[in-house]
Amino acid sequence: MLSFENDYSSTACPQIVQRMTQIQDEQYPGYGQDDYCTMAAQKIRKACDDPTCDVWFLVGGTQTNQTVIDSIAPQYTGVVCPDSAHINVHEAGAIEATGHKVLPMPQQDGKIGAAQLDDYCERFTADANHAHMVRPGMVYVSQPTEYGTVYTREELAALAQVAHDHGMPLFIDGARLGYALTSDGNDANLDDIARIADVFTIGGTKVGAMFGEAVVFTRGNTPANFTALVKLHGALLAKGWLLGLQFDTLFTDDLYLKLARRANQEADRIRQALLEKGYDVAFVSQTNQIFITVTTAQAEELQSKVRLGFMEAVDADHVMLRICTSWATTDDQVDQLIALL
Amino acid sequence: MLSFENDYSSTACPQIVQRMTQIQDEQYPGYGQDDYCTMAAQKIRKACDDPTCDVWFLVGGTQTNQTVIDSIAPQYTGVVCPDSAHINVHEAGAIEATGHKVLPMPQQDGKIGAAQLDDYCERFTADANHAHMVRPGMVYVSQPTEYGTVYTREELAALAQVAHDHGMPLFIDGARLGYALTSDGNDANLDDIARIADVFTIGGTKVGAMFGEAVVFTRGNTPANFTALVKLHGALLAKGWLLGLQFDTLFTDDLYLKLARRANQEADRIRQALLEKGYDVAFVSQTNQIFITVTTAQAEELQSKVRLGFMEAVDADHVMLRICTSWATTDDQVDQLIALL
Amino acid sequence: MLSFENDYSSTACPQIVQRMTQIQDEQYPGYGQDDYCTMAAQKIRKACDDPTCDVWFLVGGTQTNQTVIDSIAPQYTGVVCPDSAHINVHEAGAIEATGHKVLPMPQQDGKIGAAQLDDYCERFTADANHAHMVRPGMVYVSQPTEYGTVYTREELAALAQVAHDHGMPLFIDGARLGYALTSDGNDANLDDIARIADVFTIGGTKVGAMFGEAVVFTRGNTPANFTALVKLHGALLAKGWLLGLQFDTLFTDDLYLKLARRANQEADRIRQALLEKGYDVAFVSQTNQIFITVTTAQAEELQSKVRLGFMEAVDADHVMLRICTSWATTDDQVDQLIALL
Amino acid sequence: MLSFENDYSSTACPQIVQRMTQIQDEQYPGYGQDDYCTMAAQKIRKACDDPTCDVWFLVGGTQTNQTVIDSIAPQYTGVVCPDSAHINVHEAGAIEATGHKVLPMPQQDGKIGAAQLDDYCERFTADANHAHMVRPGMVYVSQPTEYGTVYTREELAALAQVAHDHGMPLFIDGARLGYALTSDGNDANLDDIARIADVFTIGGTKVGAMFGEAVVFTRGNTPANFTALVKLHGALLAKGWLLGLQFDTLFTDDLYLKLARRANQEADRIRQALLEKGYDVAFVSQTNQIFITVTTAQAEELQSKVRLGFMEAVDADHVMLRICTSWATTDDQVDQLIALL
Repeated sequence: MLSFENDYSSTACPQIVQRMTQIQDEQYPGYGQDDYCTMAAQKIRKACDDPTCDVWFLVGGTQTNQTVIDSIAPQYTGVVCPDSAHINVHEAGAIEATGHKVLPMPQQDGKIGAAQLDDYCERFTADANHAHMVRPGMVYVSQPTEYGTVYTREELAALAQVAHDHGMPLFIDGARLGYALTSDGNDANLDDIARIADVFTIGGTKVGAMFGEAVVFTRGNTPANFTALVKLHGALLAKGWLLGLQFDTLFTDDLYLKLARRANQEADRIRQALLEKGYDVAFVSQTNQIFITVTTAQAEELQSKVRLGFMEAVDADHVMLRICTSWATTDDQVDQLIALL
Repeated sequence: MLSFENDYSSTACPQIVQRMTQIQDEQYPGYGQDDYCTMAAQKIRKACDDPTCDVWFLVGGTQTNQTVIDSIAPQYTGVVCPDSAHINVHEAGAIEATGHKVLPMPQQDGKIGAAQLDDYCERFTADANHAHMVRPGMVYVSQPTEYGTVYTREELAALAQVAHDHGMPLFIDGARLGYALTSDGNDANLDDIARIADVFTIGGTKVGAMFGEAVVFTRGNTPANFTALVKLHGALLAKGWLLGLQFDTLFTDDLYLKLARRANQEADRIRQALLEKGYDVAFVSQTNQIFITVTTAQAEELQSKVRLGFMEAVDADHVMLRICTSWATTDDQVDQLIALL
Repeated sequence: MLSFENDYSSTACPQIVQRMTQIQDEQYPGYGQDDYCTMAAQKIRKACDDPTCDVWFLVGGTQTNQTVIDSIAPQYTGVVCPDSAHINVHEAGAIEATGHKVLPMPQQDGKIGAAQLDDYCERFTADANHAHMVRPGMVYVSQPTEYGTVYTREELAALAQVAHDHGMPLFIDGARLGYALTSDGNDANLDDIARIADVFTIGGTKVGAMFGEAVVFTRGNTPANFTALVKLHGALLAKGWLLGLQFDTLFTDDLYLKLARRANQEADRIRQALLEKGYDVAFVSQTNQIFITVTTAQAEELQSKVRLGFMEAVDADHVMLRICTSWATTDDQVDQLIALL
Repeated sequence: MLSFENDYSSTACPQIVQRMTQIQDEQYPGYGQDDYCTMAAQKIRKACDDPTCDVWFLVGGTQTNQTVIDSIAPQYTGVVCPDSAHINVHEAGAIEATGHKVLPMPQQDGKIGAAQLDDYCERFTADANHAHMVRPGMVYVSQPTEYGTVYTREELAALAQVAHDHGMPLFIDGARLGYALTSDGNDANLDDIARIADVFTIGGTKVGAMFGEAVVFTRGNTPANFTALVKLHGALLAKGWLLGLQFDTLFTDDLYLKLARRANQEADRIRQALLEKGYDVAFVSQTNQIFITVTTAQAEELQSKVRLGFMEAVDADHVMLRICTSWATTDDQVDQLIALL
């Protein structure tokens, strides 16, 4: 059945699969000590326009968030984030499992704002009982957000400024970063992200790779003994070259951006069709996720013909669905979907 | 300076201090294996009208919540509570430090309701992604609540019913339980609490003891190897008889209730005076805590003469203060306070 | 350079790489809900001769040990194992990071014995202070062991019996299970393992797969809500079909055993050559790992020509090296190595 | 029955009990913000001859070890200690519960040596796989040791030197520190301890107090936000003045040392009698603990008349018992015991 359910339902882009077949007869050192990891890190540093970035490769998103947050946040602190954040809602308590409270703030279109963050921190500091409360210790946002919206460069810079003013690092979860970088009107490019964030990720799983998340620490922010930290979180892949090879491929000839841009363009076509047909489209999103509110009856009919993501029951009669394109979405699939709408 | 800041600013009731002086020449087995603990547990079982209750004695409130919750909640679950709950706001992340997410629900007057809880659980179960979310694993409420309000027996029974329907135990934090048991109009007596809760505490620290919280597991709910669990949470007092002696004293001749009732009566006098003088008194509370909203100027003047608890800034011009009586509050102190109002 | 450093330096067997290239145009449900996972689990159940086995697929070994142990061992318990166990020595504290003490016992040839285990448990139970000690809560052994030796079926059955007598499950870490199953003289076949263990793993990473460990729970031992447990340990792969596809391939036409047997045969050739040339070969191992003790000078010379694993300095003048074959080792590589010895 | 079972079977010295009775009518600020805590800390700083020491008061020993170690040791590290250490054997896994591996080293008479420690660390650093191993992150010893023996000043200084050379702090657990400070031949005085250790404790529970352990951080070693760290470990006593009052008392007129010295003198009398009567006394201990090896029959007879600590079965026919004096032991009790021997 036709599926726009998510952006991780296809194996990997052909370039990656092909290279996997070409390295069968070689032997590599394990745990990321291989040349592919070195080359991929070098290419990412170049794409970030910052030769000092420190790049690591992990397998999955929750694993990466758990490892980074637990390694960066002092143990007596929590991690501030939008209440819609993946770490707050969809990681089964992986952050709390490492002892850190998630400190959710009300989101708007999936985002939190710098003034809002500042107010939160100021109120914490002013509270006479704050030694008995969980101190905000780092800030987590994702780019794009859970709702496919994109922070502007100015918004991210302002968040970083407030975070730093309060002694906190800013972590930008880029599980779908490619889709933000290539969305219409985006002005926060990879080098901006690298200048603004203290640590961020470049997601592979949802943008062309089989699996893999690149973790980029900027300005010397790598935690001491990070290899051991990755290992103790169960996140050190034995055959690390599989990660290096994939990111080396994605960061050759701008493949990462090309794959993401295609997905956005396909989403744009769907979005335009939806609007033309009068659908209720939520959020001002320019990335690969589209959220529509339809009646329960409409939802049932649609879902009988195409696999879509179910978000939530809006009220007794309406539900919100997600239409998600990916680097693997074809023109033909989009034509079929539009015909169904 | 006159102080109504909290209910843990006096050492202990005279009866307890006196008995402490009378046991100096004896030697006791450690870790709660002494006769005082046995006697105190027996008296508590009798007061609960349930000979099957299993009673343990720990030192402090946060420690007790941490130990009980981590021992009762399956590791893949969180603990549902009002968002004003002590475990959510004022325990510095002690619950998350054991790996459990706190799952706050909107409170009203410090309480959550059975229908609200049921709805929360139903929505969790209905969510297609719930295997990626934190499952509600137990329910935590306090009696009285953080705002001094009291659940009715019916409200508690309904919460327990919903909790049990969803496979969760109900934990009632009774750090100030005495003040609830003796408040006007309360209809949830100790034997009701014991019939309703799966585990609850009887707070000593704030109701006459130097320190100590009795943990009562009902209906065979004691976790396996609970001594080891207490020990590994750093909560096993070497000289356990100090806890047994105190609870034995508090549960002799209804001392626990007498001490609490006195504090409530003193609070009632203050509450009446506040209302007569036109103060803005928040919450319908009949226990030993009174919350008033005053102007910043009023607050400053009051606090120059009497130590009060500061709750929060309500708006730019108003703050909420807490007036707290205790078992140690004297008529004279209350007279002085009323004269100041 | 020629390398016998380890058994995870090659990408994957050709059959797996080839199938990876054949599924590029398909879309699959995530998180292990796909048909490949279903088929692979079915084939593993058949190979285990037990239709009730419950099979899960995780990515890496440390991750798997961490997830399984933390999910199976009650929180107040530790995990008993040989002191040479991977979880005790080479997982960077991943087990303790989940709150469980590792309880190492003296090993012989990498093994512990049933009588030794029984004695350990009996002494624990008899200790007057045992409520203050870490209770043995599960037993972990690996098959083959860290030193390449193999437990007999009788030895494993005896360990399981003692474990069960003391209320503990037996976990057999089979990160290299194939090499044990196909070693000369082995009498513990996969169906025996499934009958004896409460949970065991079938390692893919070191036996032909790109990555992946199959976790097999027997006799209804799967922990409640194991999907959430996997997720909160950061171990749930989004594209689960990549794991299913690999294990489906490995368990088709006995490929798993064929790959392992080849590695053992190559190791046998090397072992024979070593013995003929008078090398000091440690442990009576019939699997793919060979441990030799050589002088420091010999070691340096060897390592200038072939990459070998360094185990430890035996004394001031001698070191122990590991020669490790894998499913990818070729006759030609072995010939080259033998010529060097 | 006569008891020499342990040194925490009596409530508290009369001076402390008396002062407890004298503060009933006062109100104090909570959580250690009171004047008694301030005064006690000041007296301890003076006794340490170091005005920069930072002093905190916690309730119990395991709680204190857990809080200090988890606050000081980086999360990717373990704590090195003698294998007989309390944290390794008798804290029910409280250290591992915070995620840190305990790294036991073979002890001699309860001690580890500087050269042994250095060798351990050197071997760790030299190990090619050390990123996969648990890094030694701090050193824990107790003074006196679990066997009542005492480190010399030189031994402690050497341990500290090696620890510092390897980037680790030295933590001295002084749960029974008084008994070491006042033992015959001891040359490590309190000011020496303060000069040598990075953090140490002064035990109250076993040396005259009802309960309480003073934690002393030297040279600015206090962890950031230690109040919150204490709170999140469940170790912050509401009525902190109870701790301050006790330590203020113990550090007035050298009471702490006087109480401990008496216990040592009583132990010396017993030790001498034991040696005269030909008992097999283990360890060269000059503190309040005496370990004797007797036949099972002798043990049974002794234990029918006096409560002693049971240590372990030495062999089929012999057991080791512990005779423990305390600040509360009377001449008469010792006379009775000697008569029984």
